[in-house]
Amino acid sequence: MMNLLIRNCRPMGGAATDILVEGGRIAVIAPGLAAPDGVAVEDGGGRLALPAFVEGHTHLDKSLWGMGWWKNEVGPRLIDRIDGERAERKKLGLDPARQSDRLAKEFLKRGTTRIRSFADVDTEIGTAHNDALVALRDRLRGTMDIQVVAFPQSGVLVRPGTAELLEQALRNGADIIGGLDPSGIDRDPKGHCDLIFALAAKHGVPVDIHLHEPGELGAFAMELIIERTLALGMQGKVVVSHAFCLGDVARADALYAALGEAGIGLATTAPPSRPVPSVKKARAAGVSIFGGNDGIRDTWTPYNMPDMLQRAMLIGLKNEFRRDDEVELAFATVSDWAAEGCGFADYGLGVGARADIVLLEAETVQEAVVATPPQRVVVSHGRVVARDGVLLA
Amino acid sequence: MMNLLIRNCRPMGGAATDILVEGGRIAVIAPGLAAPDGVAVEDGGGRLALPAFVEGHTHLDKSLWGMGWWKNEVGPRLIDRIDGERAERKKLGLDPARQSDRLAKEFLKRGTTRIRSFADVDTEIGTAHNDALVALRDRLRGTMDIQVVAFPQSGVLVRPGTAELLEQALRNGADIIGGLDPSGIDRDPKGHCDLIFALAAKHGVPVDIHLHEPGELGAFAMELIIERTLALGMQGKVVVSHAFCLGDVARADALYAALGEAGIGLATTAPPSRPVPSVKKARAAGVSIFGGNDGIRDTWTPYNMPDMLQRAMLIGLKNEFRRDDEVELAFATVSDWAAEGCGFADYGLGVGARADIVLLEAETVQEAVVATPPQRVVVSHGRVVARDGVLLA
Repeated sequence: MMNLLIRNCRPMGGAATDILVEGGRIAVIAPGLAAPDGVAVEDGGGRLALPAFVEGHTHLDKSLWGMGWWKNEVGPRLIDRIDGERAERKKLGLDPARQSDRLAKEFLKRGTTRIRSFADVDTEIGTAHNDALVALRDRLRGTMDIQVVAFPQSGVLVRPGTAELLEQALRNGADIIGGLDPSGIDRDPKGHCDLIFALAAKHGVPVDIHLHEPGELGAFAMELIIERTLALGMQGKVVVSHAFCLGDVARADALYAALGEAGIGLATTAPPSRPVPSVKKARAAGVSIFGGNDGIRDTWTPYNMPDMLQRAMLIGLKNEFRRDDEVELAFATVSDWAAEGCGFADYGLGVGARADIVLLEAETVQEAVVATPPQRVVVSHGRVVARDGVLLA
Repeated sequence: MMNLLIRNCRPMGGAATDILVEGGRIAVIAPGLAAPDGVAVEDGGGRLALPAFVEGHTHLDKSLWGMGWWKNEVGPRLIDRIDGERAERKKLGLDPARQSDRLAKEFLKRGTTRIRSFADVDTEIGTAHNDALVALRDRLRGTMDIQVVAFPQSGVLVRPGTAELLEQALRNGADIIGGLDPSGIDRDPKGHCDLIFALAAKHGVPVDIHLHEPGELGAFAMELIIERTLALGMQGKVVVSHAFCLGDVARADALYAALGEAGIGLATTAPPSRPVPSVKKARAAGVSIFGGNDGIRDTWTPYNMPDMLQRAMLIGLKNEFRRDDEVELAFATVSDWAAEGCGFADYGLGVGARADIVLLEAETVQEAVVATPPQRVVVSHGRVVARDGVLLA
């Protein structure tokens, strides 16, 4: 059932129209379309139609969603969270296959059909989380697109054996190689960047480095990443996640320009509690910037929801986007720009795009962002897959 | 019907118990209570029971809620927003009576029964907004408590005639006198503070000053407010709203201490986009700090919802409250501390408190804050007044 006629919906808040889907793709957008024989009809009821959302940065493998409330008593440092997580996941019997499946479906219910997820790789769990996510990705193909990033959450050089495990994760099917805090965690910025980029070049995969390092330390790491991206011709294949340093170094403008020239993208969660990259400055420099939740209800944080409209709201608030033309940028970070930045193909509400569509009660895109209405109809590949929070079939 | 038995609920996430309400107040909290003759029974179904929420800083009178989407094209400065609003409210035919009634009920549906609302007073609208809010306050008595603050949004000294209108608003029933940005808007910090405090002393009402001024300018205004609070013996009667300067001056600790000694409270919206007072630092100095939305979907901002759990989430995110004991503080800013800071009596889930209670699906208070579940049963003065987003009778 890849053919569908959606009647009376308003794409991006425009005039009411119909959308005919054929073979899972948007075939015609026009008012008053007749339903071809045997084609299912979905009455849009005049609702807003949005392209299904894109989650550009999350950790499906380690959410505690649905496992009962976990009492967070973790210390305040990054390393407390990293070490605490390794200890807790054992105690809790966290099953990455079950948890990633569960959280992916929570995303789907709320209208997200494309996800970039990190999978922890370390010397205690080996490639188990990665392999679970690769299996999930393959199983959900045709309903959701999941990119799997082999991610050394506990460091690489500081934990011998991790580099080999990352390589094994790539051989096992990971799509992307991850890195993090070259100085703060691995204590060797040159060594860390050389190693991650060497793996990327050898396996022909993109890079996504989580850079929490603030100020000049983060800016230095960013320079190392830019240098290697250019040297290896990896423009368009590298993302720096978080990039908090762009929110607090005086020379941020030069860094945005260099990122733009190197074709490096930025993923932002826009945390209210600290400086972050500016969406407008990034775009002005030609940098693809997009949104993500980071962890959702895990041992790092109790916050965040598998709802990209809530993330767009938080990105809008953080960037002080109040005017309609600005709030639209917040929505772009969880839609067009996230598809572009992560490299998800066939995206959007145009003819020819894959028919991944969300219908909800809102007058405008802006209202959808600020009100995050919970009642939604979710269409993936031309099939209605969820209705008002319930997955179908 | 002020008597009610709530069976099988979990106050603050504790063990399941029953709550017997008599005469609108909590009379007994114990498991296995028998329903006295003729007393209605509400099955809590094991849900979490929270004290109904408190909104400590909002503008009921000028929300555009339910008026169709308003396209925001306002400039970026504070004065653009103030001047733009005066122009737009005329064009839009904004009816403060209708809008404040509408928004108050949206709050009630989501579990808020006590609200401090500002009412614009200026030389164009006179006391019309104030009078509409006073009428609403009186009409909703017995269901919601509303404090009305006569608020000179467009300035006092810069708009001759405003002081007289503020005084008229107090004579017409306003509970509190407001002020704002003594330097930034009124261009005369001493003159503004003298005038506002003189009105407060003359009419025996508390003060709530909106202080957006950053850095040392804001800190100076805060000193003027502290001096006058002490001179007039108004400890416990003064609130500084926003107080962004506390987030960015080096001598913030001394200011927190002085606020604590003067018994001045702080209202915070915790905007992600700028520095704000620290909840922990304020409390450590003995300062009452509590949460509010500020405007909700008005010409200032499209954001914010009449949902104090969402506000608690934003306050928690801004203050980087991750541990359970910290997230509990975020909830306190929209419950106990807001009641304390605004001076709402009979608050809480203890025996003798007014039976304003919210039942919702969450295991813990922390889960309620991070997940903001939309399905809620709201009890006010011992009556069930809303269920799953629908007001009853």
